[in-house]
Amino acid sequence: MTNLQEMGKKARTAAFGLQKLTTETKNQALRAAADALCANSAEILAQNARDLEAGEAAGMHPGLLDRLRLTNERIEAMAEGLRQIVLLEDPIGEVMETFERPNGLILQKRRVPLGVIGIIYESRPNVTADAFGLCFKTGNAVILKGGSDAIHSNLAIADTIRNALETSGITADAIQMIADTDRSVTAALMKLDDFIDVLIPRGSAGLIRAVKENSRIPVIETGTGNCHIYVDKEADTDMAVSVIMNAKTQRIGVCNACESLVIHQDVREALLPKLAAALKTKQVEMRADEGIRAYLPEAAEATEEDYGTEYLDYIVSMKTVSDVSEAIDHINRYNTKHSESIITENKETAERFLNEVDAACVYVNASTRFTDGFEFGFGAEIGISTQKLHARGPMGLKELTSYKYVIYGTGQIR
Amino acid sequence: MTNLQEMGKKARTAAFGLQKLTTETKNQALRAAADALCANSAEILAQNARDLEAGEAAGMHPGLLDRLRLTNERIEAMAEGLRQIVLLEDPIGEVMETFERPNGLILQKRRVPLGVIGIIYESRPNVTADAFGLCFKTGNAVILKGGSDAIHSNLAIADTIRNALETSGITADAIQMIADTDRSVTAALMKLDDFIDVLIPRGSAGLIRAVKENSRIPVIETGTGNCHIYVDKEADTDMAVSVIMNAKTQRIGVCNACESLVIHQDVREALLPKLAAALKTKQVEMRADEGIRAYLPEAAEATEEDYGTEYLDYIVSMKTVSDVSEAIDHINRYNTKHSESIITENKETAERFLNEVDAACVYVNASTRFTDGFEFGFGAEIGISTQKLHARGPMGLKELTSYKYVIYGTGQIR
Repeated sequence: MTNLQEMGKKARTAAFGLQKLTTETKNQALRAAADALCANSAEILAQNARDLEAGEAAGMHPGLLDRLRLTNERIEAMAEGLRQIVLLEDPIGEVMETFERPNGLILQKRRVPLGVIGIIYESRPNVTADAFGLCFKTGNAVILKGGSDAIHSNLAIADTIRNALETSGITADAIQMIADTDRSVTAALMKLDDFIDVLIPRGSAGLIRAVKENSRIPVIETGTGNCHIYVDKEADTDMAVSVIMNAKTQRIGVCNACESLVIHQDVREALLPKLAAALKTKQVEMRADEGIRAYLPEAAEATEEDYGTEYLDYIVSMKTVSDVSEAIDHINRYNTKHSESIITENKETAERFLNEVDAACVYVNASTRFTDGFEFGFGAEIGISTQKLHARGPMGLKELTSYKYVIYGTGQIR
Repeated sequence: MTNLQEMGKKARTAAFGLQKLTTETKNQALRAAADALCANSAEILAQNARDLEAGEAAGMHPGLLDRLRLTNERIEAMAEGLRQIVLLEDPIGEVMETFERPNGLILQKRRVPLGVIGIIYESRPNVTADAFGLCFKTGNAVILKGGSDAIHSNLAIADTIRNALETSGITADAIQMIADTDRSVTAALMKLDDFIDVLIPRGSAGLIRAVKENSRIPVIETGTGNCHIYVDKEADTDMAVSVIMNAKTQRIGVCNACESLVIHQDVREALLPKLAAALKTKQVEMRADEGIRAYLPEAAEATEEDYGTEYLDYIVSMKTVSDVSEAIDHINRYNTKHSESIITENKETAERFLNEVDAACVYVNASTRFTDGFEFGFGAEIGISTQKLHARGPMGLKELTSYKYVIYGTGQIR
């Protein structure tokens, strides 16, 4: 059994040292870690082969096997990811505000690391390097709990980075990977609130729910996206088809993909024939209410459950509304507060939608697929927050920081 | 049994409306609520008398009875609190950032309400009006769960405000008070994550721990303060005595009061005799390690437990250190990340302490008692956060907000 208390203590000690590192020292260590990943690729691939073998033996789905598979190219991409983080501005130490009080106290609000970040993930092994890079650049220590399927790959990547840190004169405990794949470890990790400041789950809706329900550590909820596109009566219907096709089919398995269409009744005749024709070219299954099916009898009947489902598949639900209010109500009822878009030429209607739809990212005349740290220009992304506390939407480096108030006095008392 | 689901739905609906209110409408309603509290003082006092009677019958401590007691003056102070909130700048709608991407998308980061805030508190009935005022000004709906001791007072205050809102044409459900005082309701409230965006517990360390451990809703941890003052070898010892006396004795029951002194060994001789003399004037009990007791034999022996205790009493623990590093280590080990102060004339030593001590507020040459929304100039305070997520230190209006990204496109796809 992993000694989590011990790991927690080591992470806390590491974090104390990391907060003091200069930007240049951190950047040098990130470059060293990138180089080490490339230099150690043979060993990483050998460990990855063990995971692949176990996956094949267990009858893992080919799609999942592909996500798990590392290649020299993918390792190079991981290293490149770290080198990109070197180029990003270091937010730590920034003086966010300074103000003086009538009693002469001078207050400074300074940006500081969060401290120790725990990340629980099920995804591809590249998350190991990515998450380390972002946490390290912001002076945070990280404890990682990856999926059991990728455990040998994850450990090989983490060990490579740990060695590179030590060679750079930095504590290896800036990154710790939990080797134990037992689920009880995840449960115990969630109780480690004495040592971990924030827990970020990345993966399935089930994982995220379990963490949210059981964690004593503050959680940043990420990921699930039941994203809508509302086509208003004053929409450019060609634009609507183009945006819907992009949001629905460009990549189906991602959280910012569109899952549901809300369609103004007055635009059905102009929109639905060409939309259906386009969706058919990608074999997208349509599930619709009666208002849509009157125009598209080939669509299946949508159930209540459909409107609440993030398909992550070539399926789309469709709902007719009689005005923008009904569209907003429908979206606020079923969405996961991720990304929502309206297609309209009417600025007032757009502004109402943007103001009243409750989501991290609300769009007018654009694809929901842009909700992404890179697309937003943050240069990186640790996840997309769907909660309102701390950070909302794509989380880059700044979202991995906290602040402290530093107060300069000359003996002031109350 | 209270129908919490129903309250949650009502709060969500109310929040949807509140986010759209103009600043002027909100201010008018706050003024109306303030006037109503004064106009309805007889009824509020009558309900408060019921709570006081029950408290006396149950043998409640006189100090607690005093906290529970309302008077015309205290009701006027509550109203004045609401009027003060009118004067504060409305943060909602602020465009925090605007940026354009190479593809022509224009992104705006806009400040929005959190949505529905749950507050669980044990404190005085005035929190009911205060919490409402801060949440309302920031466009949030609030669900309140006060202590059973003050239930009649709290309900009378909430009903008065609800009536005032309705008269102003605003939904009364902007404030809902849970009438049921059974503890099971608190447990159920913590599971209401479909309707409540943030839960803020205000009260004892036990209450806060229970909420943190059991809530599915994101929590902002507030309050407990095991605050230290470190007297460096290069301290102005007269300033040290003055700051310590203020931080320890000006008000003992508050979270920003000093609980523990860390003293450089080289300053003992100059500091301890006059410090002990001053502490004696207020009957402060001293609990110290051997290094201090060598100079102050009258001090009791401090145990490990003393260093971890927030006394909220006329007791102070004392610890000798040989340098600032040891002081920082000691404080980071035992503090609750609230407020810490160093007394020194050496700027380098001060800067090191300010950087390396992990707390919401770190002071040089000032009393920890300044950690307070009013003292910081925020004009109000919903609590003092001791966690690193979302908000740290005194929380004013801005800390009761979130943001959303609003993205303007012209048909962009990926």
